[in-house]
Amino acid sequence: MSRYINVAIGQLGPVNREDSRPLVINRMMKMMREAKALAADIIIYPELALTTFFPRWYMEKEEEIDQWFEKDMPGKETNPLFSLAKELKIGFYLGYAEKEIKNGVAHYYNSAVLVDKNADIIGKYRKVHLPGHSEHEPWRRFQHLEKRYFEPGDRFPVWSAFNGVMGMALCNDRRWPETYRVMGLQGAEMIFIGYNTPVHNAPAPQHDDLSLFHNTLSLQAGAYHNGCWVVGVAKAGCEEGIEQIGGSCIVAPSGEVVAACITKGDEVVVAHCDLDFCQIYKRTTFNFDLHRQPHAYKEITQYKGETLNADGSLRS
Amino acid sequence: MSRYINVAIGQLGPVNREDSRPLVINRMMKMMREAKALAADIIIYPELALTTFFPRWYMEKEEEIDQWFEKDMPGKETNPLFSLAKELKIGFYLGYAEKEIKNGVAHYYNSAVLVDKNADIIGKYRKVHLPGHSEHEPWRRFQHLEKRYFEPGDRFPVWSAFNGVMGMALCNDRRWPETYRVMGLQGAEMIFIGYNTPVHNAPAPQHDDLSLFHNTLSLQAGAYHNGCWVVGVAKAGCEEGIEQIGGSCIVAPSGEVVAACITKGDEVVVAHCDLDFCQIYKRTTFNFDLHRQPHAYKEITQYKGETLNADGSLRS
Repeated sequence: MSRYINVAIGQLGPVNREDSRPLVINRMMKMMREAKALAADIIIYPELALTTFFPRWYMEKEEEIDQWFEKDMPGKETNPLFSLAKELKIGFYLGYAEKEIKNGVAHYYNSAVLVDKNADIIGKYRKVHLPGHSEHEPWRRFQHLEKRYFEPGDRFPVWSAFNGVMGMALCNDRRWPETYRVMGLQGAEMIFIGYNTPVHNAPAPQHDDLSLFHNTLSLQAGAYHNGCWVVGVAKAGCEEGIEQIGGSCIVAPSGEVVAACITKGDEVVVAHCDLDFCQIYKRTTFNFDLHRQPHAYKEITQYKGETLNADGSLRS
Repeated sequence: MSRYINVAIGQLGPVNREDSRPLVINRMMKMMREAKALAADIIIYPELALTTFFPRWYMEKEEEIDQWFEKDMPGKETNPLFSLAKELKIGFYLGYAEKEIKNGVAHYYNSAVLVDKNADIIGKYRKVHLPGHSEHEPWRRFQHLEKRYFEPGDRFPVWSAFNGVMGMALCNDRRWPETYRVMGLQGAEMIFIGYNTPVHNAPAPQHDDLSLFHNTLSLQAGAYHNGCWVVGVAKAGCEEGIEQIGGSCIVAPSGEVVAACITKGDEVVVAHCDLDFCQIYKRTTFNFDLHRQPHAYKEITQYKGETLNADGSLRS
């Protein structure tokens, strides 16, 4: 038995600070047409796809911050992307900065939407694992202020869509095994993950040469350990002087990379993915019902950080 | 700052069904001397190191089963290993089948002990994730009856020892991110994992060629995602006609393999491991206190298996 979804990576090259949304959306529409010509059912764009990666700058003024956020999705500028998707009958995943007014209070999230072939938004995900810091740290070559500009999301839902069970995550989420497991426990068969990852990590620069390895390792482990497909899509290349890793790829439930980008620019790569292939793992090695032992995992939800000091004594 | 432990892999080649414990222990003592000559502080032996991997046979009679288990640790036959360790001032990790009588009832575990340089047992671990099946399945080329012969353990403790925080796991545990995370949350700096893994997996034979890849992937991801060292040690080679994967290695907190066996036989490989190296990861990308979001993980301890059906409806 086979149940296919043809997935396109829609890797973006750099988006500069002065680039307008229509300029970027034109690039994305070009890639959407290319994906459709390659028989794709869905195209996956990166995290914060519509603008440059703005958390690398410290900003204080609300109007300066607000310019990077979408108040509506779709909005005036993103509408053409939705219209084209509807015309072409292709779905998409889009990462963007979301501003929501709720009970008169503004909330800011690092979000992604899952859009079906009728251009209807069928799912929204808000990034749970915000990396970086919240205050200006001038010693860094560039900032990573996600904890300043966004509130964290609080769950990892899955959606029945595209003939299977789909999940979403964003960037740093992919380094946390909990991300995949929470969705795996809900039967996720494919997880889409857009990201922006600089080669240089200011707090641990001694491992800049491993950034790409850590990306692939995390995507592969998440896929294998949950018997699901994982699609990682980068905003890549040198953006505003900062090198980003690229490395977009599609990982099978076996942990094998089955498709990968080879540039740091706008690039479309498609894979023909059998969702039934998940069962080889979900029914055997990773049959959760047979093999998981949640009574031994209580620390995972009970504690946020380390429970012991280095000398073995229990933290107060 | 540096805080070193010199760790020796004590990979074993095949142990046949008729091999006596003294025969195997002699091989292990030879490797212990070799490890000591290479300046090792500790040598790590595989899972069920003292005998052949007996769960590959179906047995019904208690006395037939009992022959594979140790009633005492150390016992008459394992004493020489402890004596040599004390003489050489070297610690060890030893996987073995444990029979414990408690309140007049016999309990059977797949266990490992951590032994210090005075040959004192300072920690015992009982395998949590038992793979395989509990009933005879004659369609298999060989059985994997761990669920028949053992009760599962129920926790992943850590120990302050060898100048750091040490954890233990066994074989199938290494495929479950929860294993590493529970110990990571207790500050584990190094995790020892003995294993017996056949190349052939009867329920999913289409992936036999990936067995070694899945081993390395799991060890690397567990190390990187928790900023700790991971030492995986195999019983390798063709044992009673069954090929086992080997692939013993030492993985740094960066996820890099820093030492690896290159044979499928008895082999000692040593690495000079800086436990302070963990901090590069534990204080940055994997600073749990800063970045984990346990409120979003509740499914991990709440559910054993999948919570949703493939159509997205909640499982009853």
